Amino acid sequence: MKVIVSIGGSVLAPEVGSERVGAYADAIESLSDAGHELGIVVGGGPTAREYIGAARDLGADEMELDNLGIAVTRLNARLLIAALDNRAAPTPPTDHETALEAFRHDDIPVMGGTVAGHTTDAVATGLAEYVDADLLVYATSVPGVFDADPNEDPEATKYDSLSASELLDVVSGIDLDAGSNAPVDLLATKLLERSGLAAVVIDGSDPEGLASAIDGDHSGTDIVPDSTEHR
Amino acid sequence: MKVIVSIGGSVLAPEVGSERVGAYADAIESLSDAGHELGIVVGGGPTAREYIGAARDLGADEMELDNLGIAVTRLNARLLIAALDNRAAPTPPTDHETALEAFRHDDIPVMGGTVAGHTTDAVATGLAEYVDADLLVYATSVPGVFDADPNEDPEATKYDSLSASELLDVVSGIDLDAGSNAPVDLLATKLLERSGLAAVVIDGSDPEGLASAIDGDHSGTDIVPDSTEHR
Amino acid sequence: MKVIVSIGGSVLAPEVGSERVGAYADAIESLSDAGHELGIVVGGGPTAREYIGAARDLGADEMELDNLGIAVTRLNARLLIAALDNRAAPTPPTDHETALEAFRHDDIPVMGGTVAGHTTDAVATGLAEYVDADLLVYATSVPGVFDADPNEDPEATKYDSLSASELLDVVSGIDLDAGSNAPVDLLATKLLERSGLAAVVIDGSDPEGLASAIDGDHSGTDIVPDSTEHR
Amino acid sequence: MKVIVSIGGSVLAPEVGSERVGAYADAIESLSDAGHELGIVVGGGPTAREYIGAARDLGADEMELDNLGIAVTRLNARLLIAALDNRAAPTPPTDHETALEAFRHDDIPVMGGTVAGHTTDAVATGLAEYVDADLLVYATSVPGVFDADPNEDPEATKYDSLSASELLDVVSGIDLDAGSNAPVDLLATKLLERSGLAAVVIDGSDPEGLASAIDGDHSGTDIVPDSTEHR
Amino acid sequence: MKVIVSIGGSVLAPEVGSERVGAYADAIESLSDAGHELGIVVGGGPTAREYIGAARDLGADEMELDNLGIAVTRLNARLLIAALDNRAAPTPPTDHETALEAFRHDDIPVMGGTVAGHTTDAVATGLAEYVDADLLVYATSVPGVFDADPNEDPEATKYDSLSASELLDVVSGIDLDAGSNAPVDLLATKLLERSGLAAVVIDGSDPEGLASAIDGDHSGTDIVPDSTEHR
Amino acid sequence: MKVIVSIGGSVLAPEVGSERVGAYADAIESLSDAGHELGIVVGGGPTAREYIGAARDLGADEMELDNLGIAVTRLNARLLIAALDNRAAPTPPTDHETALEAFRHDDIPVMGGTVAGHTTDAVATGLAEYVDADLLVYATSVPGVFDADPNEDPEATKYDSLSASELLDVVSGIDLDAGSNAPVDLLATKLLERSGLAAVVIDGSDPEGLASAIDGDHSGTDIVPDSTEHR
Repeated sequence: MKVIVSIGGSVLAPEVGSERVGAYADAIESLSDAGHELGIVVGGGPTAREYIGAARDLGADEMELDNLGIAVTRLNARLLIAALDNRAAPTPPTDHETALEAFRHDDIPVMGGTVAGHTTDAVATGLAEYVDADLLVYATSVPGVFDADPNEDPEATKYDSLSASELLDVVSGIDLDAGSNAPVDLLATKLLERSGLAAVVIDGSDPEGLASAIDGDHSGTDIVPDSTEHR
Repeated sequence: MKVIVSIGGSVLAPEVGSERVGAYADAIESLSDAGHELGIVVGGGPTAREYIGAARDLGADEMELDNLGIAVTRLNARLLIAALDNRAAPTPPTDHETALEAFRHDDIPVMGGTVAGHTTDAVATGLAEYVDADLLVYATSVPGVFDADPNEDPEATKYDSLSASELLDVVSGIDLDAGSNAPVDLLATKLLERSGLAAVVIDGSDPEGLASAIDGDHSGTDIVPDSTEHR
Repeated sequence: MKVIVSIGGSVLAPEVGSERVGAYADAIESLSDAGHELGIVVGGGPTAREYIGAARDLGADEMELDNLGIAVTRLNARLLIAALDNRAAPTPPTDHETALEAFRHDDIPVMGGTVAGHTTDAVATGLAEYVDADLLVYATSVPGVFDADPNEDPEATKYDSLSASELLDVVSGIDLDAGSNAPVDLLATKLLERSGLAAVVIDGSDPEGLASAIDGDHSGTDIVPDSTEHR
Repeated sequence: MKVIVSIGGSVLAPEVGSERVGAYADAIESLSDAGHELGIVVGGGPTAREYIGAARDLGADEMELDNLGIAVTRLNARLLIAALDNRAAPTPPTDHETALEAFRHDDIPVMGGTVAGHTTDAVATGLAEYVDADLLVYATSVPGVFDADPNEDPEATKYDSLSASELLDVVSGIDLDAGSNAPVDLLATKLLERSGLAAVVIDGSDPEGLASAIDGDHSGTDIVPDSTEHR
Repeated sequence: MKVIVSIGGSVLAPEVGSERVGAYADAIESLSDAGHELGIVVGGGPTAREYIGAARDLGADEMELDNLGIAVTRLNARLLIAALDNRAAPTPPTDHETALEAFRHDDIPVMGGTVAGHTTDAVATGLAEYVDADLLVYATSVPGVFDADPNEDPEATKYDSLSASELLDVVSGIDLDAGSNAPVDLLATKLLERSGLAAVVIDGSDPEGLASAIDGDHSGTDIVPDSTEHR
Repeated sequence: MKVIVSIGGSVLAPEVGSERVGAYADAIESLSDAGHELGIVVGGGPTAREYIGAARDLGADEMELDNLGIAVTRLNARLLIAALDNRAAPTPPTDHETALEAFRHDDIPVMGGTVAGHTTDAVATGLAEYVDADLLVYATSVPGVFDADPNEDPEATKYDSLSASELLDVVSGIDLDAGSNAPVDLLATKLLERSGLAAVVIDGSDPEGLASAIDGDHSGTDIVPDSTEHR
């Protein structure tokens, strides 16, 4: 099975030195041993927030902040690569073409961000489409897609499944409202909708969740492609 | 004045061989002679549509379609560069860093697209922020921002001015509704909102409009930054 | 069998959207399925002519015209790659080293031009030599090599076979005479002569001709290496 | 005056978010305003140590650790660039040629490391030689070169001045003794000796020290070139 | 005056360590001091012949031989750059775009070859066209263009002047005849003819000849553009 | 067995055209046939010395001299690649990441130098660590490590075996003493010590020595890792 996984930075490593990185490496190696073809995209997490905060205080503009964040995502990618013991392409691909080439030659590409304005969820979605993935997994800090912010609203209900266009409705409501965090960002969702890919949003705090998601036996939210007629 | 201009592909050249390209080159040269520092981003237009249509029929995925489109935008950039007679950087920069470098060394960067999933309007917005532009001009196929689709609704009214967050409200209504064309796409608008840049949406069918936009004497729509308190 | 194919731009796609591209993709896939190792170089065709004509009107110099042409050849290469469904290297190699690497790792390299002053026939000839090809196929708009221009002279006779140095004599007579089109250009012929490769010139309007050429059962012209003593 | 400055990572930012970065940016801008031509190389500091420690626990080899460290030095370079407000080349040069090019076109190159096995002190020394610098400043965590480790030996005496070959004697004694920190590492010292450059080792905790070093009015250690006869 | 100079490898350095390189550097510096804008392309000479001969004995193909030759031309370019004391771009540009960029930013580009199958004379001709040169100088091992091979035929007569198309007639006679050396190779001549540039062929053994050629006071052969009507 | 070999330039080719290159190619092919995975790094030798001498006379600085030397090492790498008949990656990798990628995809990477200040022995040591080699072979111009310079002291005794830290003691004594040649340079030795790799120093004048070294049946000096406790 061809699977692309987007792992949020805080999910991969709540702090530098977390044992989570090693656990993710183990989970990825097991899936690779089981014959799955994998590609990974990781986020920035706490180190990104530190550097971006410092740069903002120094007067950096938003593009420079994004570029700092991208540099940290690639640093995190290198950390995961170091843990993956010769399964991964040795350097984080910086564009989709290079990642695709690694994927086709049986190396696991481990990417960070690519360009300012693009989230790592969007990078993962593009990669999934590019390799024609069977499944795209968003391993996030929330356990799925809810009809309201579960941190704010105790009655928020998790969707078991929704279509990409329904996700887009949910996300665009949240994303345009400053201060809220969508489970998947708007650009990624738009790319997902047009791609017709199958995806799942899961709680990334347990790396074992990857295997469950691939087995279709997870407690997150399935995102099913809209009927393809209108494409 | 530092000015970044996003010129839609159909605006730059309604068909290959159009005299519009030469007229844009003349307009850009005049502004450069007048001491303005310029950066240009051009779109794909009819050639992009032809190649994308052909590739879609051949079974290409959305990433491949985007990459074909990007290749055409760079082809259009080369065409405009050829017309600009040694004012422009000789090759279209393929990322913002290279464009910034050209800009700082008094060459006019003429870019096309950068990565799949990113429109040329978004590229231009990022470049404007990166060079700390005084003005960002979207030269589009509509004469400004309207409260409804002017092609559909005869009562649609053009805004003389609106804030970036108001534009975001207008665009997100349109953009998520398949089949409609927003004057500026959603990603570009989001980048614009966070940047705090001054921008203007003008009818791109007359290259002379660039000078008018810079003089503040245009008939399009001004996009004014939101108050900066909340940034 | 290692086979490099040079497909003229007008041969690949008489116009954008032609079904010929898909037919070529099918022919290439069949040959790949049959165990042949393939490399493809495509030309610019009508889109190249349109852009070059437009740029010439805008005052571009010959180097800029060549570079526009090269950009279109790569666009055509992307179109054919999109049709080839994961057999081809995902991006058109821009130099021989990258193409060779793809070839060695079982991806089909699909190139366009490389540098100004070099035709795609010359690129294909260099690639054929670099991969030590068993056969180089020039799929052109004429059905072989003639002793005169078949469009002008009704008595022009097609050669069934001639040596590389004989081809060089034929081509240098034609190529230096402005307005005429040689079946293979002079630089490519010179590279072919020094390489000692076996080649064939066939009518490219029927993609099935590739298989016939490989089987040695074609109606074009065989180019046989000169005896290798003098090399 | 052409001046290259090597700023240790812990010196530049004892922790992420330190005000030291802004103070260094101010000092560099003042020197630039005063007409000095500058190039900067920064180290990795605490973030590098965190990532390297985490990777070591995950089983990374020394090359991977070096590469992580280099990635952090470039992150730090981006942070300083963001603070330098359009004086610096927009991205950290990753090799000396690119840095030299920025230097010659009046941008301040701000580099991190280049390749595994090479310290940022060595990078700075190479850059100083490449741009033919008048002065090379090592801004370190010790206030100069001592005849013993000042942290261990209260009677350690600081040299006011010593030749490059004398520095080499001092450093090679320390550097080969695991666990000790030389004020300048062995490779950098060897490059310095062969270069014949004038250098100074100063306490980097006060960014104002750069101006003092350039004025020749510092309290660190001058490294004077050996007589040039033997070169 | 914008001047591109093609210096044959044996002309630049009859052997490694020749004083000729320093003399050429002096000549180029004088012309630069006099306000001329210069670009240089150098050939391979004896070191290229040695390596190519060795590789041929080891079974290399023609592409590999060309690539070895190109590597030596770039080595020679580095040698001349080292002698040019900060006038030249620090590394030899490997394509025309990079060379043009250096040229426009007041660095002297010193190139070697670019791709297999392309001579350094052809590279120089392309560069001349790209920078819109006022003069292209071929500094060769023969003192001009003759109506026969001056080494073979004592009655060979030097042309004072001939048109580019006349040169093409002369060269195509010689170039296709194995074993002979044309003063300018066929590809370069074809590029020259289409470019409409003014050129001169001079004896390269005296670097002072560059100044004479620029002054129009040389004893070589002027190549004058064909009338431009037919272009 | 994974084996990285560092071949000194004078060892590979005492002069250009030496039969030694072909003999090394044969030895490498035999080892590859026997199932060993190989990576090769070659030095500069006599051509490097000629160019460096010429450049020094022309006033080049040490960085430029190093860069010339690196260019020659890559030229030598191309020569060996040409002899290796499609076993080697077609172009010499210029950094460790590219070399590792070739190594993992069953091409033999043949590298020269990477950056100024880094010897080819150091490059080989880094590559050995990067690919996690079982053995690193230094094929040098001396038959092993001695307790004194064998050319000077007739009583110099060769070590059969010594630890990496003992080698470091030997080398640092020699290397800092101008005019002497260490069997392995100081930077390479330091990288070797930290890597914990097994290595051997052999007389490179007989290419058959590679097989003997791999068999553990050589007459050179074994370098054994220090006990790994202190790492």
